[in-house]
Formats: sequence, structure tokens, C-alpha cells
Amino acid sequence: MTHDHIVSSFDGELEHVRQNVMRMGGEVESQLAKSIQALARRDSDLARKVVEQDANVDALETELEESTVKLLALRHPMADDLRVVVAGLKISSDLERIGDLAKNIAKRSIALNQMPPSGGVGGIQRMARMVQGNIKDMLDAYANLDVEMATAVWERDTEVDEMYTALFRELLTYMMEDPRNISPCTHMVFIAKNIERMGDHATNIAETVIYLGTGKRMEAERPKGDTSSFQTMMTPDDQEEMKS
Amino acid sequence: MTHDHIVSSFDGELEHVRQNVMRMGGEVESQLAKSIQALARRDSDLARKVVEQDANVDALETELEESTVKLLALRHPMADDLRVVVAGLKISSDLERIGDLAKNIAKRSIALNQMPPSGGVGGIQRMARMVQGNIKDMLDAYANLDVEMATAVWERDTEVDEMYTALFRELLTYMMEDPRNISPCTHMVFIAKNIERMGDHATNIAETVIYLGTGKRMEAERPKGDTSSFQTMMTPDDQEEMKS
Repeated sequence: MTHDHIVSSFDGELEHVRQNVMRMGGEVESQLAKSIQALARRDSDLARKVVEQDANVDALETELEESTVKLLALRHPMADDLRVVVAGLKISSDLERIGDLAKNIAKRSIALNQMPPSGGVGGIQRMARMVQGNIKDMLDAYANLDVEMATAVWERDTEVDEMYTALFRELLTYMMEDPRNISPCTHMVFIAKNIERMGDHATNIAETVIYLGTGKRMEAERPKGDTSSFQTMMTPDDQEEMKS
Repeated sequence: MTHDHIVSSFDGELEHVRQNVMRMGGEVESQLAKSIQALARRDSDLARKVVEQDANVDALETELEESTVKLLALRHPMADDLRVVVAGLKISSDLERIGDLAKNIAKRSIALNQMPPSGGVGGIQRMARMVQGNIKDMLDAYANLDVEMATAVWERDTEVDEMYTALFRELLTYMMEDPRNISPCTHMVFIAKNIERMGDHATNIAETVIYLGTGKRMEAERPKGDTSSFQTMMTPDDQEEMKS
């Protein structure tokens, strides 16, 4: 009887880890959606809400970490259970970073609202929609321990990287056209980069879900579609040439 | 006798975690130093070495994570020992990110070598020197469990943020002066941002060292000196006005 009680309470604690990860995921999804909405609608009030909301995510991460350490100390989980705990820690750290990046987008959109509208908002929205989809699918894969789905999302991140590279080039051309675009477009480049990094964190989560489901690590380096760090970019003369 | 043997081997395993963290730290320090050298000297060969070196850091992180999970499963560490293990996991994840950022700087410096020299290299070097110092001090604080030193470095990050904001503004003015500067300066802005983020990871490590030494978490939000996400920046007209 006592033994049963201990076991069931232990399961309850593991379930608590899972639920906290899912709650954090939901919070972060909503943060990202609102930050892009704030950008597209030039809504500084909404952006400020996103900045404030980040405290919830941080609090959830701290709570999760503390309950995990307690669980490790008191319950000594083994094998599969231990993987649940370690995976919870890893995923929550990725989710916390995604939340931070959404907060940064919100801050930048407040700054952008004090400047004339910038090009590239449509591209940002498309990129964000794709990353949001990946994060959502990843949380489903985590909830259902669906390794196949996690692998699919992992592979899909190349598309995000490609969108980023295209958007980066687009934004550089606006800057070259008119120096008044440089300041807003620099914020936009950072926003695009933030979304691309959210995609990277989603693939980290995918790798953790795969580890959780199979006990194996992804061996291969993920194919990278973002080549912008290597990009030398066209000179203005090249651009003129293309136009003519 | 058997008991003694088990205990001493357990201590050995904890020491192994510590040593692996220090090795990762050393590797990452050298990666950062070389990436900035490659940038300043326009040395693409050195930059390529930094990119390759990142595999060592990743391998060390994987090894550390695997030995940690094994240790948790077999040894059930408690209290202080458990904190050593959890701290090792957290710090190695921050170090891995710093390594990634150094790799990204190296990639960007290869791209920059195909463009005319850009302004702002001196500022980048100064910023990098400061962050390198912070990372070094932080590893010392970790090795000696020196909470006071960790707190000092934690507070010092504001200076890094301030340098970043100043450098960001400087780079924007180069872009506004001549559209041919936009492409190289965009890389430089990202490099500056990467260094600023390394500083953030150093403060994360500081927080972990403080947690390790005291069992307490830093409650307060760290004062932020980087206000660039809020920055609206001068218009070219403002600049003209300043010059006249």
C-alpha cells in the first residue's frame, strides 16, 4: 500500500514535469504570436504586454528546475524516468530562450513604431508562421512522444533558414536604396535572425524528443539552409546592373 | 573498504564533471580569442580553424552530458553533490553556446575578407577583450567556487552592454555615410551582437556559480546596459545637423 502510494506520487511528479513543460510551451507560443502581431499592427501596447509576459515564462522555468532538482534528490529516477527529467530540463531551457527572443522582437517593434514603416514585414510574418507551426508540432511530438513527427520538424528547419537568408538579402537592398531605411531595417534584420534562432531552438527540442523516445542522439549535423554568415552580398553597382 | 572505494570513485566522477567543464571553458576561450584575431588580421585560414574547432566543444558537451546522466542514474547524488552535477550541465550548455557564437564570428570574418575593410574593428576588439576577461574570471570563480568574484563579473556585464550600444550606433553611421558599407557593417553588427550575447552567457554562468556556492538564485533582474533594441537612432538629417 505504502509502496503503491510512493510509486503513484512519483508518477505524479514526472507528470508534473511534463505538464510544466507544456505550460511553458503554450506561454511561449502565445508570446511569439503576439510579438509578430504587435509588429505587423504597429501596436506598442501589445508589445509591452509581451515584454511583461516573459516574467511568467522565467518563473515557470525556475519552478520546473527547482522541482526537478528536488525530484532527482528524493526519487533517484532511473532509465526512462531519468530521461524524462533530463529532457524536461533541456526543453525548458530552449523554451525560455524562445521566450527571450519573442521579448526582444516586442522591444524592437516598439522602437520601429517610432520610425516610418519598414519593408519586409510580410516576409517576417511568413517566417514566423512557419516557426510557430514547428514549435506547435514539436510540443505535440513531445506530448505524444512522437519520434517520427519530431524528426520531420527537425528536417523542416532548413526551410526556415532559407527564408531567413532571402529576407536578409531583401532587407539589405532596402538599406542600400535609401539610408533612411538603415535604422528600421537593422531592427528588422535582428527580428528575422531572432525568428531563425527560435527555429534552431525548436530543432534542439526535436533532438531532445528523439533522445527521449529512442535513447539515441542525433549523430549528423543538421543541414544548414542559412548561408547568410558566409554572404558577401551584392555591391550597389551589382544591383544597378541587375535593375538595368 | 568497499565503501571507501565507492565513495572515492564517486568523488572522482564529480571531479571529472568539474574538469570537463574547465576543459570546455579553455577550448571556448581559445575559440573566441582566435575568432577575433582572424577578424582583425583578415586571416581566413585561422577563421576556418575556429569553425573546425567547434566540433571539439560539441564533443566535450555531449561527453559531459552522458557522464552526468550516468552519474545521476548510478550514484543518486544528494544536496551539494547534486548541485555540482546540475551546475555542470547548465554551465556546459552556456559554454557550448559561446563556442557557437565564436564559430559564427569566424564565418562572418571569412565573408568580410572578401569585402573592403570595415570600420568598427577596434571597438569589436575592445569589447571582445572585456568579454574574454569576464569568461576567464568566471571560470576561475567556478574552479574556486568564489561567489564574490562571480557576483563581481555578473555586475560587470553592464559595461559590455554599453559598449555594444555605442558600437552599434557607430556602425549605423558608417552605413548611412556610404551604402557600400552596409553589407560589411551588417556583418559587424552581428559580430558585436554575438560578443554581447557571449557576455550574457557569462552572466548565466555567474548565476550558476552563485547557486552552486550558496544554493540561492539571483532574484533581481540584472541591470541592462544594452538599450539598442529600444533604439530609434538618428535620421540622416540629424546626422547632417550634428556635423554642421
